[in-house]
Amino acid sequence: MSTHPAWLPDAAFAPLGTQRVRVVSDDDVVSRTVRAEVARAVATFGGTLLADDGAPSFVLAELAAAERSAPEALPDVVAGLLEDAVGGGGSAVPGEAASSSGPDAVVDAGLEPEDFVLARSGGVTAVLAGGPHGLLYGLHEVVRRGASGFVGEIAPERHSPAQSLRMLDHWDNLHAHPVMGQVERGYAGGSIFWVDGEPNPDRERIRAYARLLGSIGVNAVAVNNVNVGSAAVLLTERLGDVVDLADIFRAHGIATYLSVSFASPVHLGGLDTADPLDERVAAWWADAASAVYERIPDFGGFLVKADSEGQPGPFTYGRDHADGANVLARALAPHGGTVIWRAFVYNHQQDWRDRSTDRARAAFDHFTPLDGKFDDNVVVQVKHGPLDFQVREAVSPVLAAMPRTRLAVELQVTQEYTGQQKHVCYLGEQWSELLGFRPWGEAGTDLAGIAAGHGPGGRRGGIAAVSNVGTDEFWTGHPLAQANLYAFGRLAWDASLDPLAILDEWATLTFGADDDVRAGLREVMAGSWLSYEKYTAPLGVCFMVTPGTHYGPSVDGYEYSPWGTYHFADREGIGVDRTVATGTGFAGQYPEPWRSTYESLETCPDELLLFFHHVPYTHVLRSGVTVVQHIYDTHFEGVEEVEARAAAWERLEGRVPADVDARVRALLAEQLRSAREWRDQVNTSFLRRSGIPDERGRTIFP
Amino acid sequence: MSTHPAWLPDAAFAPLGTQRVRVVSDDDVVSRTVRAEVARAVATFGGTLLADDGAPSFVLAELAAAERSAPEALPDVVAGLLEDAVGGGGSAVPGEAASSSGPDAVVDAGLEPEDFVLARSGGVTAVLAGGPHGLLYGLHEVVRRGASGFVGEIAPERHSPAQSLRMLDHWDNLHAHPVMGQVERGYAGGSIFWVDGEPNPDRERIRAYARLLGSIGVNAVAVNNVNVGSAAVLLTERLGDVVDLADIFRAHGIATYLSVSFASPVHLGGLDTADPLDERVAAWWADAASAVYERIPDFGGFLVKADSEGQPGPFTYGRDHADGANVLARALAPHGGTVIWRAFVYNHQQDWRDRSTDRARAAFDHFTPLDGKFDDNVVVQVKHGPLDFQVREAVSPVLAAMPRTRLAVELQVTQEYTGQQKHVCYLGEQWSELLGFRPWGEAGTDLAGIAAGHGPGGRRGGIAAVSNVGTDEFWTGHPLAQANLYAFGRLAWDASLDPLAILDEWATLTFGADDDVRAGLREVMAGSWLSYEKYTAPLGVCFMVTPGTHYGPSVDGYEYSPWGTYHFADREGIGVDRTVATGTGFAGQYPEPWRSTYESLETCPDELLLFFHHVPYTHVLRSGVTVVQHIYDTHFEGVEEVEARAAAWERLEGRVPADVDARVRALLAEQLRSAREWRDQVNTSFLRRSGIPDERGRTIFP
Repeated sequence: MSTHPAWLPDAAFAPLGTQRVRVVSDDDVVSRTVRAEVARAVATFGGTLLADDGAPSFVLAELAAAERSAPEALPDVVAGLLEDAVGGGGSAVPGEAASSSGPDAVVDAGLEPEDFVLARSGGVTAVLAGGPHGLLYGLHEVVRRGASGFVGEIAPERHSPAQSLRMLDHWDNLHAHPVMGQVERGYAGGSIFWVDGEPNPDRERIRAYARLLGSIGVNAVAVNNVNVGSAAVLLTERLGDVVDLADIFRAHGIATYLSVSFASPVHLGGLDTADPLDERVAAWWADAASAVYERIPDFGGFLVKADSEGQPGPFTYGRDHADGANVLARALAPHGGTVIWRAFVYNHQQDWRDRSTDRARAAFDHFTPLDGKFDDNVVVQVKHGPLDFQVREAVSPVLAAMPRTRLAVELQVTQEYTGQQKHVCYLGEQWSELLGFRPWGEAGTDLAGIAAGHGPGGRRGGIAAVSNVGTDEFWTGHPLAQANLYAFGRLAWDASLDPLAILDEWATLTFGADDDVRAGLREVMAGSWLSYEKYTAPLGVCFMVTPGTHYGPSVDGYEYSPWGTYHFADREGIGVDRTVATGTGFAGQYPEPWRSTYESLETCPDELLLFFHHVPYTHVLRSGVTVVQHIYDTHFEGVEEVEARAAAWERLEGRVPADVDARVRALLAEQLRSAREWRDQVNTSFLRRSGIPDERGRTIFP
Repeated sequence: MSTHPAWLPDAAFAPLGTQRVRVVSDDDVVSRTVRAEVARAVATFGGTLLADDGAPSFVLAELAAAERSAPEALPDVVAGLLEDAVGGGGSAVPGEAASSSGPDAVVDAGLEPEDFVLARSGGVTAVLAGGPHGLLYGLHEVVRRGASGFVGEIAPERHSPAQSLRMLDHWDNLHAHPVMGQVERGYAGGSIFWVDGEPNPDRERIRAYARLLGSIGVNAVAVNNVNVGSAAVLLTERLGDVVDLADIFRAHGIATYLSVSFASPVHLGGLDTADPLDERVAAWWADAASAVYERIPDFGGFLVKADSEGQPGPFTYGRDHADGANVLARALAPHGGTVIWRAFVYNHQQDWRDRSTDRARAAFDHFTPLDGKFDDNVVVQVKHGPLDFQVREAVSPVLAAMPRTRLAVELQVTQEYTGQQKHVCYLGEQWSELLGFRPWGEAGTDLAGIAAGHGPGGRRGGIAAVSNVGTDEFWTGHPLAQANLYAFGRLAWDASLDPLAILDEWATLTFGADDDVRAGLREVMAGSWLSYEKYTAPLGVCFMVTPGTHYGPSVDGYEYSPWGTYHFADREGIGVDRTVATGTGFAGQYPEPWRSTYESLETCPDELLLFFHHVPYTHVLRSGVTVVQHIYDTHFEGVEEVEARAAAWERLEGRVPADVDARVRALLAEQLRSAREWRDQVNTSFLRRSGIPDERGRTIFP
């Protein structure tokens, strides 16, 4: 089966492909990738890849190689950029991260390996990059600009990734799990890495994936599920498989990480303990890490889910998460590796009768006491919300409470709770809003800033997400879900980018520079996250999904659950009292102004009302309608919006490829069915509970 | 792993084992089994298996062989029985079936092959049997009597099975299903027949199972799941596996049946249709049946689930169930085989918004128009209730509405909805009540009578059930669930037996003649079905279980379900209006007096109130309490009863084998946990809905 080119079809390279291009670089796997991209483009569209001489119209130059060139051999624009760069002078720089003033800010530093400067002058477009990675990113910046990258003048623009870690986690198992399938929470077929326990023989597929990720600046990938299971052997006897993957990813600027089991010293090493303070355990990890670096010198490190949802961890030995992470960190440190330690820790055997226990509090309660205790090469990866990737939940207060710890914000590109790649749900807008959340109010930095090292402690973490790809011919099940993967990379690079501009960018690359298609896709996709919110769980109440699968409505599905996710709806009202005054106290985990904002019924934002408060159905929202009427209104609106989006897609008939059209239409039909099911089940359920009819008299089944 | 002997431990044979036994029979596989049982018993306990001469204290005589004996060679008691039998004179006969007066009643007929007469006189106990099967059943009747079978006088008793078909269905798959496990709705480990797609090499295990079934009179077994899947090949290329099983079962008087896929002519035969009216299809089935009988001359026939829950069937070709069943029946008829055709047909893609569609009506609506159209060798197998083996539901009206059709009542020994062999739930009492239900009121016959051929049309069907055994060391997961398998066989033989007497019988065989143990087991097990009912779904409302697994509470789990099982609970009331006057009309499917009894809120029995009526929580039951108070009361009582049962079990410590004790204790702990979970979820849910507190002020979590 042919694989869809996603946002890198040949056509996207047409403007570049007609240029006379020179690449000035040392010989490196990433530089070779850049050269190969250029060679392919010019071969397709009639341009030229120049050798060392000849007058270029586009120059891609790596700093070190350019410095060794005779200045007169470089076009003026490159020479000028080189002078600026070596002189360390500031240039125009986009994005908040680069313009903020944290101690690690790179504005005034020289070009880092991932940085590049783009300019155009005198008919020559130029990229000057700090290293091969920057060269690759500069190339794709020019590709994204299309024809406009090769006309007029472009004043020098410096581009630096706001985040140093831009990572995708793969919840891919070596074998298909009898219940969860091969990719846990995967909605796009099997794993592109593993088939029946062995490496996928289709290496082209993996190369194509690495190329897509490299083009959007992703620089780290974990190649197996954090619920490690039998894949633990990838660390030892099956290391060769990881070597092969690392070879592929390296060429696209991506470091390979491995999810490891904390119990490996027992299960793989034959020790009788995995106690992180036991010297034999530390020695075992050190040996294991050395063996990895011997074969993968640029190995990224380990990703770990410990003491979470049944995974082994340091609690078994009476140790804490810092003890657990640090034993791995010390094994990796001599080689420059990093431990990514997930903060997704909570009691999944809660008793629903106990209304004082609150899963939302758990990560904060577990982790904030450990602030400052993690080694320098540990990054604690924190889900964006305190629960689990809901369409709407509060932001995790952990992210504002560990200044002495490197923190990565974890997003979920795979649409576990947002329509499972059957529903159109463009998440760029959600992530943009989340990453722009300012825990200390307008004066402080935002989540992206914290991850980038602009928080109070100045520690850099990064942004990570669970990938949404699989063996599906469109990569992502829903062809339009490719936009989420694309947006993840772009926002991880620079969270201040406009998510709708990113959407347009993706649409243009994928479908060509067709204004009607771009406008049509906006109708279909822009705001689709909010439509999804409308027809599913209301007002931040969360988890009204079918237990287990997490697809489709089940209003009471998690209401008596050991997983700790409740809404407490009775005949009078609904919501979780998380206030300090009368509830679980979760609101108190935030700094001001949010602590007070969430605590008060008067100031709590409507969309999070039921996340923080238990109120009567007759409570009047800040919007002026009652809670129950809001439930009815939004559920009718949500379905109407899906109908309108489906109609907008139909108007694109003939302007998008037939195979994409067929798949999207089939999935829109399912989305409509599902949205109506959500609407009717939720509305009926609350009509039955409250006894309050819709004031507008629409059909609610009794 | 050693296998538990269940109700046939050596000790149960001690009284017989000290006798001087003569077996008078021809050489037949079943007679050989009888001889082997006797030989083993006397070898163990010091008795003697006599050759043709010598004075016996116990004679097992087969009619034909006895007739050929010189009368003087037989003890007086045997000679007397023989004279009665050949003369056709009536003897004392237990059980309703034998004393009823349907056209097929066997009271005045000679001894049929499965019949036997038991007597004791002059110090000699005698069984005279109509054939080898009767000999086996007579042997086990004597075993059940223990020492009392060999003292004093026993006036001649004639024993005939009320049902000619006493069948166990196995929902065993050849391979483990990734979600459902190997045995669908099995709670006792893997299949005893199949391992990893191949025949289980542990043939001793299968022989032990066949021996257990033969001892309780089961005479038919279907060896694979009605959801046939890949096991379809058992009919053709894997037939040898069935031959081997048939060889084992035959020795214990059991005919082997196969579940077949209606689509076999397509999938196995390569035809382009499975249309039952297509001649090629009929020919294919005829050839397939002939091939089976060539290798299994006493093959029982085919069990079929068609057009049900996704299985293929005649509807695909615009044919009805009679067309479908008859094409198979005509293939089997020349060989004496039978088609068992399940009536479990309903729409499992219902729309919950449509309150007029009622799954309970489905089997009646589908099948009763076909009454009289099924061939003589078709038995239509009807689940005891119109839904699906709930702890309490109405009796299926189909059983009273097809006089010209052979009907089998289907029970479920495997505890899908009754605690999944983690809970003590003795089902003998439920089955006794169900089989004793008289659809035409006191003057008419009951369900057992209909199955036995005493209904208006006089057609004999039988009783079938889904087995509860697996590779578990105690066969059934919960050791006490063995009693359900035992009771099934006994009630299928004679539904008028007292289920508590059966329980005692099982207890004595299994644990020995210990009055304290027997009394203790009564405390643990008698009425446990009603305890289970109390702490689960109330008043016949059904299906408040976790979707999919069917274990544990989920009050709204099936409330918005395509499977068609709802309770319609809102803030005012609960129940399904199935009346003719205002509801789905299901009550009208019953003959009088039940049609009127169920139709009226005044006469409908409390335990089925919510099965037939939607009422306010404040409705006062015939018992004098309100619906909501009944819910609270029964849920508190149900848990208290489980606590008392667990305490009763603890008092048996030291009087039951340690391995059984350990398993039962562990499971009682789970039952207690689960019962409390049921109590609290159900009570909380209805407190939240109704707002009505418990009048007795007990703890209901808010």
